[in-house]
Amino acid sequence: MKLHQFHMSGNCYKVRLAAHHLGRKLTLVDVDMMGGETRRAAFLAKNPNGRVPTLELDNGNTLPESNAILFYLAEGTPLMPEAHLDRARVMQWMFFEQYSHEPYIAVARFWLAYAPKDQLETRRHLIPEWHAKGNAALGVMETHLASHDWFGGPRFSIGDIALYAYTHCAGDGGFDLTRFPRVSDWLKRVAALPRHLSMETRIG
Amino acid sequence: MKLHQFHMSGNCYKVRLAAHHLGRKLTLVDVDMMGGETRRAAFLAKNPNGRVPTLELDNGNTLPESNAILFYLAEGTPLMPEAHLDRARVMQWMFFEQYSHEPYIAVARFWLAYAPKDQLETRRHLIPEWHAKGNAALGVMETHLASHDWFGGPRFSIGDIALYAYTHCAGDGGFDLTRFPRVSDWLKRVAALPRHLSMETRIG
Repeated sequence: MKLHQFHMSGNCYKVRLAAHHLGRKLTLVDVDMMGGETRRAAFLAKNPNGRVPTLELDNGNTLPESNAILFYLAEGTPLMPEAHLDRARVMQWMFFEQYSHEPYIAVARFWLAYAPKDQLETRRHLIPEWHAKGNAALGVMETHLASHDWFGGPRFSIGDIALYAYTHCAGDGGFDLTRFPRVSDWLKRVAALPRHLSMETRIG
Repeated sequence: MKLHQFHMSGNCYKVRLAAHHLGRKLTLVDVDMMGGETRRAAFLAKNPNGRVPTLELDNGNTLPESNAILFYLAEGTPLMPEAHLDRARVMQWMFFEQYSHEPYIAVARFWLAYAPKDQLETRRHLIPEWHAKGNAALGVMETHLASHDWFGGPRFSIGDIALYAYTHCAGDGGFDLTRFPRVSDWLKRVAALPRHLSMETRIG
């Protein structure tokens, strides 16, 4: 399988992390997102929504949306629970991640740590909203961890992987994780798992 | 099962529509979202993220996130395909809906059709971005429908239900659906299904 990706995107890192836990090999294909490659015809043929990550299967079929790719890789493996309600809870946290977490925590990181500084100026007025809503999402996670070890089921799952990707580097976007001690402990538990892979490591 | 809901929310309608297709009975519990009820302790105990819809099971367990609820209701039924890649494609379209569609199409509808007019004034400058990104999402759907009948698998599924909820009423937010003829035809196909339920109908 090929992963069309931008290496420092948390949405792309999710897929590499899940694949590494599962011992699945990925060929990494770097896409020049900053240079507009995701908006050109060759890429739009793989994903008409023009976003990475996009997974390309060996038969040429393509699958976009990071959390749909996680679901594809994880079904039938220990990364997806078997009980009906636990499975729906994994989905709950993955939809929470894409709707209430990523648009603030990942977006703050992108603009503060990756975007050209002159472009940041046009967005600087949005920083307080990103921080308020991102901190609210971290607060929801902190509340959950008061009575659960993981996000979705009784064990580590793709719910945790989806949330780990942008939570562990939230500091890049100006978030203070020391305000969320249970989230900080959970991040350490994820990073201590035997098949963990850091975002920077370049292994498919 | 109880559905804690705001009746004219598309995210809540999704759940009623799926339940009606499946012949599952829901007790509807209206939440005074506009009056701040989703931010009060009694509701936050059901969903710490303070949003509707939230499903309450007969044993008291609660499940938030509209598309996670759809997944919970649909697993093992004809509303969720069985083939591995088709299942992931249903997820692809549900994540597309929450990330690339709802934040523009549903949000434009809320502010233009439901929010108090004086509050709209503070958001009026965002309308062009909502329309540009919402039209881009409708364009992605139009492209998909050139070679597929449904969103996710070979048959009508929760991928279609997730997208139908806010697409069919996009006109309320100032979108012109006549620009998207295949989307308009798909809306008609969904509404013509035997177990269809309109958004306004008050059946659990």
